[in-house]
Amino acid sequence: MKPAAVSSAAPPREETDGRPLPPGWRSYTSPEGLRYYVNSSSKETTWRRPSLSAESPQRLLARHNSSPYANGCHGSTKTSQPKETAGVALRKPSMDKQPAGSVSPAKRQIREVKETKITINCVTFPLPGEGPEQQLLKPNEWSYCDYFWTDKKDPQGTTSVAGFEVLLQKQLKGKQMQKEMAEFIHERIKIEEEYAKNLSKLSLSPLAAQEEGTLGEAWTQLKKSLHDEAEVHLKFSNKLHTEVEKPLLTFRGDNFKKDLKKYDHHITDLRKQLASRYAGVEKARKALADRQKDLEVKTQQLEIKLSNKTEEDIKKARRKSTQAGDDLMRCVDLYNQTQSKWFEEMVTTSMELEKLEVERIEWIQQHLRQYTTLRHETDMFNQSMVEPVDQLLQNVDPGKDRELWVKENKTGDVRPVDMDI
Amino acid sequence: MKPAAVSSAAPPREETDGRPLPPGWRSYTSPEGLRYYVNSSSKETTWRRPSLSAESPQRLLARHNSSPYANGCHGSTKTSQPKETAGVALRKPSMDKQPAGSVSPAKRQIREVKETKITINCVTFPLPGEGPEQQLLKPNEWSYCDYFWTDKKDPQGTTSVAGFEVLLQKQLKGKQMQKEMAEFIHERIKIEEEYAKNLSKLSLSPLAAQEEGTLGEAWTQLKKSLHDEAEVHLKFSNKLHTEVEKPLLTFRGDNFKKDLKKYDHHITDLRKQLASRYAGVEKARKALADRQKDLEVKTQQLEIKLSNKTEEDIKKARRKSTQAGDDLMRCVDLYNQTQSKWFEEMVTTSMELEKLEVERIEWIQQHLRQYTTLRHETDMFNQSMVEPVDQLLQNVDPGKDRELWVKENKTGDVRPVDMDI
Repeated sequence: MKPAAVSSAAPPREETDGRPLPPGWRSYTSPEGLRYYVNSSSKETTWRRPSLSAESPQRLLARHNSSPYANGCHGSTKTSQPKETAGVALRKPSMDKQPAGSVSPAKRQIREVKETKITINCVTFPLPGEGPEQQLLKPNEWSYCDYFWTDKKDPQGTTSVAGFEVLLQKQLKGKQMQKEMAEFIHERIKIEEEYAKNLSKLSLSPLAAQEEGTLGEAWTQLKKSLHDEAEVHLKFSNKLHTEVEKPLLTFRGDNFKKDLKKYDHHITDLRKQLASRYAGVEKARKALADRQKDLEVKTQQLEIKLSNKTEEDIKKARRKSTQAGDDLMRCVDLYNQTQSKWFEEMVTTSMELEKLEVERIEWIQQHLRQYTTLRHETDMFNQSMVEPVDQLLQNVDPGKDRELWVKENKTGDVRPVDMDI
Repeated sequence: MKPAAVSSAAPPREETDGRPLPPGWRSYTSPEGLRYYVNSSSKETTWRRPSLSAESPQRLLARHNSSPYANGCHGSTKTSQPKETAGVALRKPSMDKQPAGSVSPAKRQIREVKETKITINCVTFPLPGEGPEQQLLKPNEWSYCDYFWTDKKDPQGTTSVAGFEVLLQKQLKGKQMQKEMAEFIHERIKIEEEYAKNLSKLSLSPLAAQEEGTLGEAWTQLKKSLHDEAEVHLKFSNKLHTEVEKPLLTFRGDNFKKDLKKYDHHITDLRKQLASRYAGVEKARKALADRQKDLEVKTQQLEIKLSNKTEEDIKKARRKSTQAGDDLMRCVDLYNQTQSKWFEEMVTTSMELEKLEVERIEWIQQHLRQYTTLRHETDMFNQSMVEPVDQLLQNVDPGKDRELWVKENKTGDVRPVDMDI
């Protein structure tokens, strides 16, 4: 019998991609836009979603680039856009079906279907070796969107964590890392301030302050140079604070975590929807099995004239069976839609996280290079603080010092003479 | 009358330096080697030490150079020898005496002598403007031997301190200065050790240790560089200790103070001897005055026939007077000998102190330059510790890091496919 709500157009004899339909089968399109096929003799129906064509990957990546997150989050630097590889093939969900053979009408219902897929945690994967070979979406890039489809089992094997969670945790850990780096820099700052304080204090020491002349000048400058060194280290620590520590603390602020949560909730919701759709499929599958069993039982009873069931009863059972089949097809299609949606969001979001990680690494690299620059500067300034001391030490002149001291301290330059009688 | 103990040679008629004797005067040499002159008519005698000729300064300086201290004290570096200026005139003790004129015998004893000299604290100086002009022993050198002849009065004016003491105190102060400098360096060493300890401790921090990949490597090296810096500062402090502090502490050791004490005692003893000689002169002067007064009184008494003193008494009085005169001359000559001795020792020893001071200044200069050299080195080493960090930061590669991390953490690369019915 005809499925309900069918389009009035004549059923085509080809599939959407041009392949001819197997003999005896016709295709129809439901109002939801789902295509289904009916076997004119057995009246079996089966549903099939249109296969995703080769243009979809580009469509996905294009949508990712125009997303509000395409240029990174608050305060991050602009990084290079992820490369779009042309001609990447997305998955081709395939549905192989054996054409009906010359079998008894009852047996035609039962089809030998080889197990080619497996559903784990409500996500459907091809079994190894089955189906067309999958190419990486972004070959040679080790992209997040290629490697995190499966849920990860925890060591005990009791629960599992979505691959996406692993990516999210990495970003949260990155935030933790920048905080710890800031702390490390802070500790360095404290050490520098302590050192500067000690040098400054010692530079004020009156030790050997009584040394005079050119040697005294050199010594005074030597003591002063400690204060100059202290200034250099203080400057270093101040710059460390403003140019490295503070940026590390404020990079990506609080909004970052909120954004990550949004991603998290979004993807998690889609998984929940998928789980719900899957539950629906299981339910419909069971209902169909019950209906088919009922029909089979009733048919058998008729054949062996076991009961007084009329043809009418069988027709009712067959109708219910077909309806259950329709329901199943609809549930499967809704599930596949939802899975596709989740898939798209996964690709988009994981590439967003990937870009955030690139930005994080480059930002940190830049600021740590600022640290080494400041270190270089500090050592150079420090060296220059020794110059004046060197200069004065070169000018130390014992003769000059004697002149200065003697002028200051002489007692009398008139020499003794013989006494007269 | 002839003075006792005279040489048997005929009295010469010229002075030692070839100048002719004034008329009526003859010269004799006593066993002590002292030359004296006798006026044949008045029988006056006068003593005169041979005047120090122009060769004496060289003799003095030559003796100074060959002294055991000529090459400095224990452990000091060889410095340049004090310059010997040729033709330097030492003092010329002069004794101006009016030749006896046509005066009454009595009056011939009393001579109008203009005050040309003054004895202060037992040391005899020419009065300002009197006597031949004194040239500096070592012109343009501000030498110790030219400027410390007078005793220094203390501010209250109660006691005085020998010029030599001032020179000695300077050397003792110099020893104090080197001790204080060593202390200063010690404080710097402690500061460096503290800094090194803090850096080393921080370098072991586990902060951000979970950062992985090329960024993690750079971060690890950055942390390690703190330990390298610590090592540099530790090396600096160790070298400061062995190459600056310790030498400053041990330069000139304890023997130095002992040597200074020896000089002190030696010169002080000579001053004491001089004081003693001076006391002798004062005593002899007083005795002579007494004798002369006695003679005068007796002569007057004879003239006015006041007493029954005979010619014999007057001859006795005159004899005693002459003896007293001889005594005085001897005392004055001994005094002048002692003063000359002290003078020579003053020149020798003050130049020794001068040399010690030159050595002290140059030695300290050398070791403080060592300090600045170590500072330079330290800054250069420190700078080089940043190099490897810089290098690794340049190599930070987000792509590589993603590859490493994805390989390590991927959950599954098989993408989901549509579910079949």
